[in-house]
Amino acid sequence: MAETDEGASPTETDQLGTMDLTETCLNHAFSDRVLIRSIVGRPDGGAGLAGKRVRAGGWVKTGREQGKGTLAFLELNDGSCPASLQVVVDAGVAPVLKKLVATGTCVVVDGILKVPPPPPQGQGTRPQRIELGVEKVVHIGEVNPAKYPIPKRNPTLEFLRDHLHLRSRTNTIAAIARIRNALAFATHSFFQDHHFLYVQTPIITTSDCEGAGEMFQVTTLINEADHKLDKELIKIKKDGKIDYTQDFFARQAFLTVSGQLQVETYACGLSNVYTFGPTFRAEHSHTSRHLAEFWMVEPEIAFADLKDAMTCAEAYVKYLCKWLLEKCLDDMEFMDDGCRHPISSEHERYLTEVKFQKPVIVYNYPKGIKAFYMRLNDDLETVAAMDVLVPKVGELIGGSQREERYEVIRERILEMGMPLEPYEWYLDLRRYGTVKHCGFGLGFERMILFATGIDNIRDVIPFPRYPGRADL
Amino acid sequence: MAETDEGASPTETDQLGTMDLTETCLNHAFSDRVLIRSIVGRPDGGAGLAGKRVRAGGWVKTGREQGKGTLAFLELNDGSCPASLQVVVDAGVAPVLKKLVATGTCVVVDGILKVPPPPPQGQGTRPQRIELGVEKVVHIGEVNPAKYPIPKRNPTLEFLRDHLHLRSRTNTIAAIARIRNALAFATHSFFQDHHFLYVQTPIITTSDCEGAGEMFQVTTLINEADHKLDKELIKIKKDGKIDYTQDFFARQAFLTVSGQLQVETYACGLSNVYTFGPTFRAEHSHTSRHLAEFWMVEPEIAFADLKDAMTCAEAYVKYLCKWLLEKCLDDMEFMDDGCRHPISSEHERYLTEVKFQKPVIVYNYPKGIKAFYMRLNDDLETVAAMDVLVPKVGELIGGSQREERYEVIRERILEMGMPLEPYEWYLDLRRYGTVKHCGFGLGFERMILFATGIDNIRDVIPFPRYPGRADL
Repeated sequence: MAETDEGASPTETDQLGTMDLTETCLNHAFSDRVLIRSIVGRPDGGAGLAGKRVRAGGWVKTGREQGKGTLAFLELNDGSCPASLQVVVDAGVAPVLKKLVATGTCVVVDGILKVPPPPPQGQGTRPQRIELGVEKVVHIGEVNPAKYPIPKRNPTLEFLRDHLHLRSRTNTIAAIARIRNALAFATHSFFQDHHFLYVQTPIITTSDCEGAGEMFQVTTLINEADHKLDKELIKIKKDGKIDYTQDFFARQAFLTVSGQLQVETYACGLSNVYTFGPTFRAEHSHTSRHLAEFWMVEPEIAFADLKDAMTCAEAYVKYLCKWLLEKCLDDMEFMDDGCRHPISSEHERYLTEVKFQKPVIVYNYPKGIKAFYMRLNDDLETVAAMDVLVPKVGELIGGSQREERYEVIRERILEMGMPLEPYEWYLDLRRYGTVKHCGFGLGFERMILFATGIDNIRDVIPFPRYPGRADL
Repeated sequence: MAETDEGASPTETDQLGTMDLTETCLNHAFSDRVLIRSIVGRPDGGAGLAGKRVRAGGWVKTGREQGKGTLAFLELNDGSCPASLQVVVDAGVAPVLKKLVATGTCVVVDGILKVPPPPPQGQGTRPQRIELGVEKVVHIGEVNPAKYPIPKRNPTLEFLRDHLHLRSRTNTIAAIARIRNALAFATHSFFQDHHFLYVQTPIITTSDCEGAGEMFQVTTLINEADHKLDKELIKIKKDGKIDYTQDFFARQAFLTVSGQLQVETYACGLSNVYTFGPTFRAEHSHTSRHLAEFWMVEPEIAFADLKDAMTCAEAYVKYLCKWLLEKCLDDMEFMDDGCRHPISSEHERYLTEVKFQKPVIVYNYPKGIKAFYMRLNDDLETVAAMDVLVPKVGELIGGSQREERYEVIRERILEMGMPLEPYEWYLDLRRYGTVKHCGFGLGFERMILFATGIDNIRDVIPFPRYPGRADL
């Protein structure tokens, strides 16, 4: 349009107005391309952005040449949402269209958004609300389809476990990643809303929370001796015990199995706290619900009892579910469509699956099967413990009121044949300014199993660790 | 007041109205007591809650008897904010007032909030805006002051490091805990606001990000052999190498030094991602700025270059500072009053402290001193790396654009004498759908040092790990 001194026509003004508005909706996230989510994730599917010039980038989900090699259609996905952006490339813009269409190819393009023509009658596919007509191809990260490790059609989750470094490019693993992200942020939001402080408990520990013994050892002894070509890698003292004085921490150290005991020291001073961090079990479990490295959320509440812990646990899990439905509806719908499989039949699932079909809380367990720190009930036979069981997954949460009475907990430690010395610091919390308190642990990956309906816990953590495997 | 059929007087109605309003302001956080923060943390200092009946709980900061043992005044703190609630107990309510006044005592009381009388003329102390007149003492967790490990007056931070389990009850460590919590949630909020996905990278790894070698080893070999009374704790193969086939992961495994290489696999599929997790260095460093276990924030951005990484880093650090001033002003003021000490004088601090007195970014380092994955600049001599240096702390952030060109990065690995095989998965990201991308790592504890002015990094993490020490 030629320049003129006259004012812009009403049509032009409207268009400019719309474009100003949309400018603020397009998120670049510190890059020179817009997130595809900020186009196709709009309530109007992006139609309102027609006419806008943008740079988009992503990986080709599916691509095809059409019209005897004169056009290419690409479904471009950048992981910002499950939906892809349809990109139309003319051979006049990119002469070798074949380079663009292979699944997995990375493409960055400049173009103009437009409303595509309606699909031919009789074609049942949902029409795109917007597509990008490419003016310039800025970047092609090629893929040789003959060598690309990920098959185009329906690779199994088992197969993808052998290709951890590429599996985030698949629809299912990407949806799980977004749901996992949402659950993590929802967790922080819930506890922050309720004035809990996030306390990062140690990963390397010299305490043993459960007395279970199935712990990974952390050491520099082997490597250092190996580098010095020292044949006696581990030195044995005269009393037959291993000499840890030369180890990094000058004593035997482990990977934590729980941050609970440590976070209690913060609860007994700051009242409401929680941990959210990795925990470890060196168990040779090959089930679909166990990992050697997993994440746990562990709130601890001072001035509170078992009932308060249950109230908190219920409010927390409901908050997570509500959050997912509000913020991840597209991913949740995808999981519901594609990923539910027949359930397995372990015994503890009976209550939730057959009887209630929803989460249940079991509480007041016999003291003999529970840990020393759980509060002894007045019957002297049971402890104030509770577990939350959910359909398909089984135990999602385990919690308890903690024994705050010095004489009682001391007696319990001795009764269980445990030494007092390593727990003196823990006993100090009962000696000095003791307070009733409670808490629980939620297995974060189990929550993701519950939320997604995925069968195997190895598919809901980015880099699963289990016996014999720690890829990458 | 006698019951009557008449309507309530205006005064009563107002009072009831006020009480209904305040009910919603009082946060119990899943317990039967209110958080002290929701009383004294109000803009009016709690004065508007006069007349309200509440249960409060906390630990006594200071307590004193007065009027020949007829009254006790307690400064009660529950960690929900730096300020304490003044609690007044009459001997008629709790005959043995001495039990209440020792520092560290846990007290739960029911009472009525009231505006205290003005202080006697000439006393310069800032008057309390509200105090709690106790009607019933619900719980006393006693402290024998002769045995309490924490001295009442000004224990040093060094002293407190030997009492990790009780140090969260001190003003300084509690303020640091709240600031740390705020920075952690601000971190998640910043990246979520910008559509980054939180990806939890592995703690146990079989990759070595830096090639540095200063890694902790994770093993079950020693413990299992020790339990079997097996004298040959570690088996050596005929080729002289250690036999890891019986170790948990069937190969040598380590604690991660960085999640970067792994999180790149998610960036090259989901575009904008970040990790926030523990990382480890088995270095025998005894400085005030190094820990064996520390937390790192590592964003990774696809379709972005070094300049984008700098923009992101600057926006992130500014966001953190703004967040603290908005949400933690009382704690920040406390740190400013009490905790600044003379700075030390290491060389790399010169630029920030002497020249600019504010953060600076240094970029484009010679390739010889930087890691293989940093993008080679067109001069073939420097790489697209950047560091953010801040006053007192030195390096707060280190980042780079990553080398996305397959041939170039392959050449760099060989040039540095590293084996290709362990990096084949990393090379795959360049073989299949490669994309320009960048990222950085922020040392979370260093950010807390910068924010608080604390000297020693061991005081800004709840459970510090360093050579010879891993308490609890």
